[in-house]
Amino acid sequence: MSYKAPLNDMLFDIRHLAGIDEIAKMPGFEEAGFDTAQAVLEECAKFNEGVVAPLNVEGDRNPSSWKDGVVTTTPGFKQAFKQYAEGGWQGLQHPVEVGGQGLPKTIGAACGEILNAANLSFALCPLLTDGAIEALLTAGSDELKATYLEKLVSGQWTGTMNLTEPQAGSDLGLVRTRAEPQPDGTYKVFGTKIFITYGEHDMAENIVHLTLARVAGAPEGVKGISLFVVPKFKVGKDGRIGERNDVQCVSIEHKLGIKASPTAVLQFGDHGGAEGVLVGQENRGLEYMFIMMNAARYAVGVQGIAVADRAYQHAVAYAKDRVQSRPVDGSMSASAPIIHHPDVKRMLMTMRALTEGCRAMATVAAAAYDAAHHHPDAEVRKQNQSFYEFMVPLVKGYSTEMSLEVTSLGVQVHGGMGFIEETGAAQYYRDARILPIYEGTTAIQANDLVGRKTARDGGQAAKAVAKQIETTEQELAGRDSAAARAVLKRLTAARQAFVDVVEFIASNSKTSPNAAFAGSVPYLMLAGNLVAGWQLARSLLVAEDLASRGEDKPFMQAKIATAQFYAEHILARAPGLRDAIVEGADSVTAMAVDAF
Amino acid sequence: MSYKAPLNDMLFDIRHLAGIDEIAKMPGFEEAGFDTAQAVLEECAKFNEGVVAPLNVEGDRNPSSWKDGVVTTTPGFKQAFKQYAEGGWQGLQHPVEVGGQGLPKTIGAACGEILNAANLSFALCPLLTDGAIEALLTAGSDELKATYLEKLVSGQWTGTMNLTEPQAGSDLGLVRTRAEPQPDGTYKVFGTKIFITYGEHDMAENIVHLTLARVAGAPEGVKGISLFVVPKFKVGKDGRIGERNDVQCVSIEHKLGIKASPTAVLQFGDHGGAEGVLVGQENRGLEYMFIMMNAARYAVGVQGIAVADRAYQHAVAYAKDRVQSRPVDGSMSASAPIIHHPDVKRMLMTMRALTEGCRAMATVAAAAYDAAHHHPDAEVRKQNQSFYEFMVPLVKGYSTEMSLEVTSLGVQVHGGMGFIEETGAAQYYRDARILPIYEGTTAIQANDLVGRKTARDGGQAAKAVAKQIETTEQELAGRDSAAARAVLKRLTAARQAFVDVVEFIASNSKTSPNAAFAGSVPYLMLAGNLVAGWQLARSLLVAEDLASRGEDKPFMQAKIATAQFYAEHILARAPGLRDAIVEGADSVTAMAVDAF
Repeated sequence: MSYKAPLNDMLFDIRHLAGIDEIAKMPGFEEAGFDTAQAVLEECAKFNEGVVAPLNVEGDRNPSSWKDGVVTTTPGFKQAFKQYAEGGWQGLQHPVEVGGQGLPKTIGAACGEILNAANLSFALCPLLTDGAIEALLTAGSDELKATYLEKLVSGQWTGTMNLTEPQAGSDLGLVRTRAEPQPDGTYKVFGTKIFITYGEHDMAENIVHLTLARVAGAPEGVKGISLFVVPKFKVGKDGRIGERNDVQCVSIEHKLGIKASPTAVLQFGDHGGAEGVLVGQENRGLEYMFIMMNAARYAVGVQGIAVADRAYQHAVAYAKDRVQSRPVDGSMSASAPIIHHPDVKRMLMTMRALTEGCRAMATVAAAAYDAAHHHPDAEVRKQNQSFYEFMVPLVKGYSTEMSLEVTSLGVQVHGGMGFIEETGAAQYYRDARILPIYEGTTAIQANDLVGRKTARDGGQAAKAVAKQIETTEQELAGRDSAAARAVLKRLTAARQAFVDVVEFIASNSKTSPNAAFAGSVPYLMLAGNLVAGWQLARSLLVAEDLASRGEDKPFMQAKIATAQFYAEHILARAPGLRDAIVEGADSVTAMAVDAF
Repeated sequence: MSYKAPLNDMLFDIRHLAGIDEIAKMPGFEEAGFDTAQAVLEECAKFNEGVVAPLNVEGDRNPSSWKDGVVTTTPGFKQAFKQYAEGGWQGLQHPVEVGGQGLPKTIGAACGEILNAANLSFALCPLLTDGAIEALLTAGSDELKATYLEKLVSGQWTGTMNLTEPQAGSDLGLVRTRAEPQPDGTYKVFGTKIFITYGEHDMAENIVHLTLARVAGAPEGVKGISLFVVPKFKVGKDGRIGERNDVQCVSIEHKLGIKASPTAVLQFGDHGGAEGVLVGQENRGLEYMFIMMNAARYAVGVQGIAVADRAYQHAVAYAKDRVQSRPVDGSMSASAPIIHHPDVKRMLMTMRALTEGCRAMATVAAAAYDAAHHHPDAEVRKQNQSFYEFMVPLVKGYSTEMSLEVTSLGVQVHGGMGFIEETGAAQYYRDARILPIYEGTTAIQANDLVGRKTARDGGQAAKAVAKQIETTEQELAGRDSAAARAVLKRLTAARQAFVDVVEFIASNSKTSPNAAFAGSVPYLMLAGNLVAGWQLARSLLVAEDLASRGEDKPFMQAKIATAQFYAEHILARAPGLRDAIVEGADSVTAMAVDAF
């Protein structure tokens, strides 16, 4: 099943929701207006549709394999990654000074969606490398930067995040890997890391492991963790690759999905110690790791959107092709393609609305990131930073959870054929299942949303979002279309539900933490649902205006229909979530542990 | 991961919700009181926990395989099936006259859950055989019955349902397999059938294919379909197995889940015609097939409950074992098993509440089936038949859809380990995915609910259910516990939402079929949600009474907590579904097909 990047929808969001032409007025983004966005996305689509997407099924059938410490990736991956690197795609969002193209995240995120929709497993390698680049840019010494950044940005080398250990998953305070200072200023690293995505592979000359470890004598818990660069091959002062470092891939996992992406168990220091270089200062490792993780969390949210869109395209193609039964409204005298049946339309509309809603949310969040880093006005930067930070758990948590619903519906649309692996729909269902887990489970995102993003400021950032939504409601109230009225009704109810929950969370997080955290994931789902629906409401306002001017009417009408569907069928879930959170907290923790 | 049958919960439902001692007063069920239920379930648990459950993982890793027309099942399956047959389990619910035990469905369904929880793939063989037995009992001639029934009931032979063809899935009117009458009264059958569960295997001496085909000259569509018995080996008048019939398994499918269950493509008549015997009358095949299908639909609903419970047990065990992070309420000074974290509790409670709710619903439906067939009073039989028929799409549709949610949460509770196949949680997620598809997709169940079960009688049967729920509300209103008050609030709101939807469906199904059918699946989900919640509300009333008398207090308190959780977190979804159905119908079908 071929993949077609949804350029029209992406460019609509980039132009009308994210305001790319405003972003292009910010220092450093002068070249990054709408025309650039369009040109880059077209090129990106061409490469990924042609080169990367065809390898998706191949990766599932012929996963990466391990033998004697060596990982061989799926046939075709190495060549495709070479083309990816040569095309300059790894450097898209990174600074020009280190060889990147310095484009806004608003454009980069769309390219990320295209790459991930083409091939989730393949895309993970660049995704992790982006994280490593971010961490070095922020906390690396000049020497580290000089040694590693250009190689990573060019795609010559790749990067990994080494956090998890068997006993330390969500709870990184339990990390045991240790680093011993050496007289020459380097460290020797010893320990076992698991779940290391692309921890070993054959697609690049070197692999740069950003690794959490504890220096002897460091405080217990998360405050005693440091970050190290541990390359697969040692790197000389001249930047040349030297001998093999003492880090070995002892196995890779047999997984439900994303099978082409090797998930490594790495053993550090079994032969005298792996040579590592400290990043930044000792004991600040978690802080630096969060830089990588925040970039990665946003990117994983985009993965959810990507796999959802791919599943949607697959399901639409089948539904237009598969003939079965006459439509219930008597509009056809013979069996029809199943897309004419109301429930198939309902499933496809659900898939479409969730995907477009999350895409709109992620695009607007990216624009906030760009403004937070490039806007000349400090106050505007601050507001955008606050908004972006509020959005990260929603983009990660909601988009990935919705991808489970969408890929499951994708199977369902195919009926019995959906359960047959050859059809391809099942791969998306399997692949998507990791997304709400890695880079912080949905519960971890929700803890972040409750703790750092809501309780800490007494709900201020959350209420600022609600305030912005009210503005959209006022605009909707000024329209006289049935669609705008329908959207207004559900958006208002969902926003009110959200505000109730924010107040509940803010007032309970200290006094009744169990009650606040019992509602954390439903709160995240409600907030994500609302923000995605809000962005589709904004889309509807734009689409009505453009349609009335005769601009691309079929597209605008579809956008209006999608926004209305989202409001009536998905935003409609919000009040029920509010009730569960605000009135049902006690029943979550009422039952004794022994009774389970 | 071992499996432990939830006997306490099953027996609670059988005694207090289904009223087994009332069933035992009906003619033919004199031996089937509570003590019998308990004894049978204990024996069933022992067999399945010990023999069948350990083969579940094995079946996933070492699926049934095909070579040159021969299917070899997973090692151990053949022996286990022999024990199953020898134990008399195949005959549990079938008449004593054909070698069965004649037990009520109320007991049989619980045994079915245990078998399916132990091993979904294994259980499919008996499940399909049950369907074949039902069809022959209802429509078979005395000769057919004499030839086949005892062999099927004893488990010596197994049965299949041959409906689907490549062009005829949900739409059986498109069946092309043809049957040519022969001078001796038999037929020669020609055609291709796909998705035939246990269509070929090595676990029994013979396989009895109940096969839909068209006799030459029959009317087009569903009214020209007849049902035939086509055995794998021809059967002589003496009941002995003769030569191989002309039906061949040309391949089996490579599936997402239930891998041990061979899904066959069967080729009939490639060498002169497969010998078939007509069941009942020509052109009434679909009617007979519906007998099999209705039994099978209920049984597939039970499969959903079964796999959900297995996933729940797996997740609870992990959550009690895995230590990570300190509880947010400060109740522990060190890292704790993750079951102490509110969101893990929320996930486990959701899994538990959905599973127990659906189990209660299915048990009560089974009791109605028993009363519909055995109650001495014709009017009572009729009422129960109406209730049972209303329940079948809910048991099938809602229980299987909820099993997707539950098995997905089961993966999530395991975090990263959930995505690793060795952990086992992923198998339930994959296995469950077929359940809302086969024996009629959720949309097909919903069409049945909308068309035959709601619109046809103007919503009478539906409103009779609502009336019964009001009685439970009145009982809840007489209690002064916080749990009863909480349940009353949500049950009332959900019941009102349901009544609104029933009226909407009944009044629109003829005039605006697109609107009615656009809401068909959400209506099914709302109705299933409501009925399961209602049964848990009834459970709460019983549990409060028994707890006050000091009977098994920990169990009763857990039941009360589960009922309250269900009401506050799952019944709370109902009003949103109502809004989507009643106010959002138009946006489902608004978008032009070309715009997808």
